[in-house]
Formats: sequence, C-alpha cells, structure tokens
Amino acid sequence: MYPLLSNINSPAELRRLEVTQLPLLCEELRQFVQEKTNTKEGHIRSSLGVTELSVALHYVFSTPEDILVWDVGHQAYIHKILTGRRDLFHTNRQLGGISGFTKREESEYDPFGAGHSSTSVSAIAGFATAAELRQQKRHHIAVIGDGALTAGISFEALNYIGENQLDVIIILNDNDSSIDENRGALAIHKRYESLCKALNIGYYGSIDGHHIESLVQKISELKEAKGPVFLKVNTLKGKGRVIPESNSTVRKDGKSFQQAFGEILIEEAKKEEKLVVISPAMLSGAGLTEFGNTFPERTFDTGITEQHAVTMAAAMAADGFYPLCHLYSTFSQRAVDQIIHDVALQDLPVLFCLDRAGIAGEDGPTHHGAFDISLFDPIPNIAIYSPSGVELFKTTIKTCIEKRELAIIRYVKGWGMKKVKTLEPDIGYRWLKKGKEKVIISTGAIGEEARMAVAGTKYALLDINRIKPFDTTPVLEAFNRYSKIITLEENSFNGGIAQKIKILAQEYDYRGNIYSLYLPDQFIEHGSRASLLKKTGIDIQAIEKLLAS
Amino acid sequence: MYPLLSNINSPAELRRLEVTQLPLLCEELRQFVQEKTNTKEGHIRSSLGVTELSVALHYVFSTPEDILVWDVGHQAYIHKILTGRRDLFHTNRQLGGISGFTKREESEYDPFGAGHSSTSVSAIAGFATAAELRQQKRHHIAVIGDGALTAGISFEALNYIGENQLDVIIILNDNDSSIDENRGALAIHKRYESLCKALNIGYYGSIDGHHIESLVQKISELKEAKGPVFLKVNTLKGKGRVIPESNSTVRKDGKSFQQAFGEILIEEAKKEEKLVVISPAMLSGAGLTEFGNTFPERTFDTGITEQHAVTMAAAMAADGFYPLCHLYSTFSQRAVDQIIHDVALQDLPVLFCLDRAGIAGEDGPTHHGAFDISLFDPIPNIAIYSPSGVELFKTTIKTCIEKRELAIIRYVKGWGMKKVKTLEPDIGYRWLKKGKEKVIISTGAIGEEARMAVAGTKYALLDINRIKPFDTTPVLEAFNRYSKIITLEENSFNGGIAQKIKILAQEYDYRGNIYSLYLPDQFIEHGSRASLLKKTGIDIQAIEKLLAS
Repeated sequence: MYPLLSNINSPAELRRLEVTQLPLLCEELRQFVQEKTNTKEGHIRSSLGVTELSVALHYVFSTPEDILVWDVGHQAYIHKILTGRRDLFHTNRQLGGISGFTKREESEYDPFGAGHSSTSVSAIAGFATAAELRQQKRHHIAVIGDGALTAGISFEALNYIGENQLDVIIILNDNDSSIDENRGALAIHKRYESLCKALNIGYYGSIDGHHIESLVQKISELKEAKGPVFLKVNTLKGKGRVIPESNSTVRKDGKSFQQAFGEILIEEAKKEEKLVVISPAMLSGAGLTEFGNTFPERTFDTGITEQHAVTMAAAMAADGFYPLCHLYSTFSQRAVDQIIHDVALQDLPVLFCLDRAGIAGEDGPTHHGAFDISLFDPIPNIAIYSPSGVELFKTTIKTCIEKRELAIIRYVKGWGMKKVKTLEPDIGYRWLKKGKEKVIISTGAIGEEARMAVAGTKYALLDINRIKPFDTTPVLEAFNRYSKIITLEENSFNGGIAQKIKILAQEYDYRGNIYSLYLPDQFIEHGSRASLLKKTGIDIQAIEKLLAS
Repeated sequence: MYPLLSNINSPAELRRLEVTQLPLLCEELRQFVQEKTNTKEGHIRSSLGVTELSVALHYVFSTPEDILVWDVGHQAYIHKILTGRRDLFHTNRQLGGISGFTKREESEYDPFGAGHSSTSVSAIAGFATAAELRQQKRHHIAVIGDGALTAGISFEALNYIGENQLDVIIILNDNDSSIDENRGALAIHKRYESLCKALNIGYYGSIDGHHIESLVQKISELKEAKGPVFLKVNTLKGKGRVIPESNSTVRKDGKSFQQAFGEILIEEAKKEEKLVVISPAMLSGAGLTEFGNTFPERTFDTGITEQHAVTMAAAMAADGFYPLCHLYSTFSQRAVDQIIHDVALQDLPVLFCLDRAGIAGEDGPTHHGAFDISLFDPIPNIAIYSPSGVELFKTTIKTCIEKRELAIIRYVKGWGMKKVKTLEPDIGYRWLKKGKEKVIISTGAIGEEARMAVAGTKYALLDINRIKPFDTTPVLEAFNRYSKIITLEENSFNGGIAQKIKILAQEYDYRGNIYSLYLPDQFIEHGSRASLLKKTGIDIQAIEKLLAS
C-alpha cells in the first residue's frame, strides 16, 4: 500500500531515494498520515502543509547530526513518520503512545520539544552557539510558521542571531495562518525581506513549498551559506487533505464551558458597552466566533502575543474599559509579568478567563493547565474563581462584569458539573449536599466526580468557587461537622484548596482527618482527560476509595 | 536660582514660554535634577539624556489630555519635574516620597506606570484603541529606548499597531545603550527604517535629541500625521552631567552576594568548561563584568530578552552545556513559560540565579522579588535554594555545578548573614544554634535579622537553604524540641517555608505555636531595604517582639 514509505525507517533510507521519487513519497505520506490520524485530530492540517518541506529537509541534511528544530511540534507528524516512528504513529496523542508534539525523550531526531509556539529560533540559536563553542561543524535549521513569528520571543531570537551572525537556517513556513486568522502587519504585508534587513539576516527569497524538487535544490544551496539565512516557504495548510475534518464533539447533556462562554458574553456585552474582548489568537478555540461577528469593533485578536495582549488590556482598563482577556491557562504562563506588573500592581479592572485549565487531555504536558492557581494565587489584588459548572460560570462572569472586578476565572475545556440544586447560593462557595461524617470539598469541574461519588450516600459536598480571597466560613463549618475531609482539585498543590484547608486546620486545631487529591508535582503525560484523571488519582474511583476507607 | 523652572508648575505653564527660552529651561532642568537627586542614583543618566525630548513633548502636546507613555519610567524624571512634582522631587525613591518610575497614583500625567522595560508600545496601542472606540480625538505618544526595543513585547505591539494603523507616535530614544552594552542586530546596525517598513509603520527619520528647536518643530509636524509614526531621536545618556557618579556602596564587613558571585563563577568556570553564563542585559548588575572579561567566549549578554535567554539556555543544556542563567527575580516573571515549558518539562540542567530576590529597596514595587519562590515552587523538577549568606551561597553554586542540577538560587542584593559556625553542615539546612523553648526557622538573607535576635538568648535558629525539595527532618526535630516556632522569610506566603511548616504541623499534629513572618499579600512600596523590612514587619524588632511574647 505504501511502496516507498514502508521501506523508510530512518532519514538515511530516505536519502537513498532519487529526487524524482520524492513526489510519490509525499503522496504516500499524505495518505498515511490521514489514514492513521484520529479524525478528531485538528492539528493534522499543519503537518500536511509541510509534507514536502519535511521530506526535503531530511533529504538534504544529515539529521540527527544536523540539528533540525520544528516550532510548535504539531507540524512535525511527517517528520515523526520519517524518523523511525511510522509504526507507532497510530498511537499518536493516546495514553502511552507517541506525543502530538516533538519530544526529546521520544527520538534523537527531536533535539528540542515544543508544544508552545515560537521557541524554535531561540532554540536553534542555542544549538548553534553550542556548536560554535565546541568548534563543531554541523548545520542548524529551525522551521517556524508565519503565525508563530508574531510572538515576541522569536523576534528576540532573530535579533540575537543577526547580531551574532550565527550559522543557522530559518525556514519560514508561510501558510498564511495563525491559529485563527493571521495577524500582525508582518504576516499580512509579508515584508520579510525588510525584517531580515533590519535584523542583519540574509533573506533568500520565497519558494513554492509543494514543489519538492525546487525545495531540495534551494535548501541544498542554502546549506553552503555563511551566517544566518532566512527562506520563506509558501505552503497551504491542510494541502492534500482528502478525509474531511470531523466536527467537534457534540453532547446533548448541556452546554460546555466554551459554548456558554460565547453566549453569556454576547448577553453581557449588550448591557455593558465598556466590555471588550482581547484574545491572543484563540477566539475560535474560546467559543468567541459568534461574539466576534456580533461585536466586531469590540473584539481584538492580537495574534500569538500573550504579553502584548495583556498589557494592551491593562491600558484599555486604565482608560475606562473593562477588558476581558481570554488566555489558555498554559499560555498565561507567557504573560505572568504583564499580569503582575501591568495589571495587578496598577489594580486595573481586567477579567482574565483562563481556558483549558487543569488536564488538557491529548495535548499533554505542554498544554495542561496545572499551575494557574499556583502562579496567580500569590499575586495581590486579583480574585480567582474556579466554577464547577456552567451555571456558576455564567453567574461568576456576570458578577465580575457588574463589579468590574480584577479577576481570573479558570475552567476546563468541555463540560463541568451537572446543574444541581444549590442549598445556599453564594459566589464564593456552595453547599451542594450536607451530610454526615465525611465531606468532600472540591473546586472546579472536577467536582462532577465528587458529585457522582456522594450521590446516594450520607456524605456531604462543598463546592468552592472563589479561591482568592478565600472564605473560611464553610471550611470552619466543615471542621465542626465532619470528622473526615477530602479535598479535590485539578491543579497542583500550591495555592490550591488542599493547602488552604490544611493550614486552616492547623490554625484552628482541627482533629479530623484530611485527605487531599490534587495534581502530582510532576509533568503529566498526554491521553484522554478521563484516563489522566484516573492516572493522576483524582477521579471518582479514587474518591470512592477514600470515602470507603 | 531657577528663573524659568521655578515658575513652571504644570505643562500648561511650560507652553507659555517662547521656543527660544527652552534651551535655558533645559539647562535649569539638568542642574535641578542633579542637585536634587541622591548621588547614589544611577538612573539619572537616562533622564538627563531626554531633557530636551521631555520638554518638547509637553510643549507640543496637550498633556494630560494627550496620552504620553514613558517606557520604563526612570527616564521620566524631567517629565515628573515638569508635571507638578518639582517640589516633591527631592523625595524621589525615598519611603513615602515619589516613585523613581512613572506611577498612575502619583499624577494624571502618568497614564501608565512602568518599572519594567518595553511595555510602552503595547500600552499606547491600548490607549489609542480605547480612544478610537470612543471616537475621541487626542494624540498618543510612546517613548521607548533602543535597549528596551530588544524585548519581544515591543515587537508584538509594533506588529499590532502596524496592522491596525493606529494613530500613535512612537519615539525611539536612541541613546545607544541597553542596561549594559547595547545588544541585538537592530540596535547595532540601526536599520529602523527597514523594521518600520516590515511592520507597516511610517518612519519619519532621525533627529538630534539635544536640539530643542528642531525637536519641537519635528514633533509638531508629526502631530498632524495619520497612522502610526516612528521617529528616532538621537540622545546621549547622561548628557550634561556635571556631578560625578558615586561609586557603589563599599562595606568592609565581608562580601556582598554580587561580589561573591563573580568570584566563585570564575573559579568554577576554570574547572568546569561546560559552564556558560547567559544574562539578559544584567552582567554588570550581576557582578559578572570580570567574569565576562575572563571568559568572553562563554559569556552571553542577550539584551533585554528574558524569554530568548532562557530558551537559548535550554537548548545549550540540551546540547551538553551547563548554562547559568542570571535573572533579576522580578524579571524572571517575564520567562515563566520558558522556565516551565522549555527547561523544566524537558528536565534540562540549567542553573537560574535569581538576583534582587526579596525586598529590592528604592526601586519599589515593580522591582521587589516577592514572588519567585511562589512562582517556581509549583514547577516540577526544579530545586530551589535560598542561601542566607555568602559562604552558603558559594557552596550551593559549587554543588549545583558539580551535580549539574536544574535549580534556582535566589538571593538579595547586598549582604547576607554574617559567617557563622555551622553545627551541622548540609546543603538543605543548617542548625545555626540549638536552644530551648523557642526556635526561629528562617530562609535567605533575612536570617541575619534572626541571627541577631537570638544572639545571647537561649533560643534556637534553623537556617533553611533548600526550599524544594524540602527536607522535613529538621522541622520534625523542631516540633519535638520547641514549643514555639517563628518562621521568617522574604517572600510572600505561597510556596514558602511558613506554609510548608504549617502543613507539616497539621500532618504531624504539632501542638506548639507557630508564628510566621513573611511578605504581606500586597504590593510593597519603595524605600530603603531596612525601612521596608521594618514596615512589612519582618525585621529584628518584629522577631524580638515575638520571642518575648
């Protein structure tokens, strides 16, 4: 079925082919990657677009001795298939399978892992510098997308490379895309030659990224160049896709956080004209496409620029607006200083909605939102909310907007706790069930596991929404009423509720037992959300075991 | 003494002067700022360089209605003097006095505060966008230095402004300086026109920043321009300085952390050839000038680029080197994602030396290193050290290098605990004094306050060096021996030793009393280190009071 591909177990074998055979190989690769990829896999389009480029690079260079760094590794599927992972490729993104991104542990052909974008140019600068120090001859190539080039770190790195005249080849994969629409003057007007001139980097023109022979020829020429080299390769994202993309999962049992997010914001924006929405390239992932269509003038997609997005939000807040800044939890790590220095220190009203908090599933360790509570709990002036379900999520957003609160709301991708009758509605906490002996205190969507675990038992359930400032009232009540407390959260220990409750227990001399379930102090692999909740020991079985013991 | 200046209490009064009077005013301003500034104040050189520019901007524009944002506000002394703070200027950087940076609370002429560099372009984009939404006519000006332009956030913002054709004026204060030597191809080759072309921003040439009449004329022309405008103003840092800069404080009682740092690294680098040093523009502040002279090929000043510096370090570590990445604690906030995603996740051996941890003194809230333990304690794979004094600091560096440990070492600016006889040398902790009834458990240089407090008493002192992984042994011993524990640290609560000890107390059912001294959950103002330790209640008096109670 794959006459050429089935014989290629390493780039060395690829290099034995004639150039004229490469177009057929590319065809086989496109067929193979689509056949093996789970149809839910949205990321495949990036890899399809760089099929010829991946083949050409491994054909021309002597990987792994030559260093090839792919930016944000989901464009590296073809690279993985060519570098010994063909027969593992069907396990892509599954628990125990290969990663959807480049990963050092996985292969010597992955010198640098990357799940977040825009790191490849810095990384290649590091490798080139290391080789220079060792006086080692080898080639250094970084591939970066035009969308990824909007992030400041890539500019920092190019500026460094231009100064130091490092021998690196930077391939711009220009597929005219960011995650959503492409953003930034550079990507829109494509004046890369001017950028290269400004940064003292040799610009080597623009080439059709789907013409393998030309690619091989051009890249072979560049191999001999001295100093930094920049080549723009024009590709089409999803080129050669024949299997259509499936729609995202639809469930009938209520709305996901992302669905609810778009809806509530449209409602609120109608009432509050000072509400504006800023997103670094994630409007569609956020569920904000419809919002953007309804309020185009109040919707700002800044491209992959978490730092700029947050500081711009701060300035708009300083000037009387109430900006909602939507960030994936894991990408908020890119804007920690801006959140501290530009927003919190100036106590400006900005609402941060941190999406993909907790376990992010198949995207794995680069994408889990395991640290957001930990990172932001120490920062003065910011309230932190972690709503368990969609209704509470909506109430929280509404309340923050009404009060123009400087706050973070963190929530998972997908569905949260089913709608439950609240005994005592409060934005800070809710007793969802009172009971005897034992109580679970949970925060966030993981509370659904707790809700199921206590259903039909005599045990109680307390749902904490506001983590900071933390209301001690319900916890002290729990100390009085229950002899066993189980805490549950989808974040690492620091800053979370387990920690706060244990400290209260110490201060108030609580004599009962406290068991805490939280994410372990280690990076968590990739896999389905359910499998990872189980693996990290924070799912319903773990809770039931604790309740029974 | 200041015939013109003494009559100027606001920019409106400045605007009543004739252009021909402005050179004399500039002379007076230079004289005034030098007269009033504490001679220890190094930052004055930036402000001296923009004397004419500051006058010209307030002369031409109608501040505060027009929005003028100064990047990293220490260049804004002249601006402050012209905007109603002349008579307060002698309190600059003192406790209760005006801030050394722009500050919103201080004046309506400071629309956006900035102690960290490179935020002004993002901020002006936010203000311009806000004005556009309101259909408000006003002018928007950002001033940014050529050094500050090396940071990625400014590129993100320029790219955004170029796309959206915002009506903003960006003034490049080209003083040929970063904090140390200028870095990056852009600043060295000065091809700003090419950069502007790439980013679709109008380049309006280059002008002598010390010729006030030309400045006024040029800026008046730009006022009428449409779309984004970029003007390069050539200035000389420290222009007109007559009072010589004083040397930094010299003390006879032992070495500062910064002095020791340079010395130990030179020693270690002689033995370990894989050790390289990477600093984003802080080599001299770090105490590494001599190191750079001794090992120029192993010293990398990347410019103001914390993100790139860390990712480049990660790649060099992946390639067999042991990079030491020196960051000011407060600026490490700019590289949180790189530390998590590029270094810790890949478990690469990088040594982060976080300088200016804890209270940073006169630089104030933008510069205190109050959050580093909190931010990094939740990150897997990284060890965290907080040595109390120089000897332990050296041992810790040596040990990390020998083991090629992925670690953070955080230390204050200045001096730590005096050399003390250690009862039990251990990299993790040291009993400095055993005793009766009460024990102080401290970490970091603040331990000096504890050492003085217990001297001559029967009380004990335990010094914690390694915060993560945290060794419970000495704490459990303290639980057994002492009925009262006082914890002391120069960081906010989260992740720190107070928290860890309280949780252990809960788990081990310790029945004694624990009192904890740490930085409060609020931003801390500026002032001398001693005055701020007192104010935040973590100095010797606070400890003695607790010991006595």
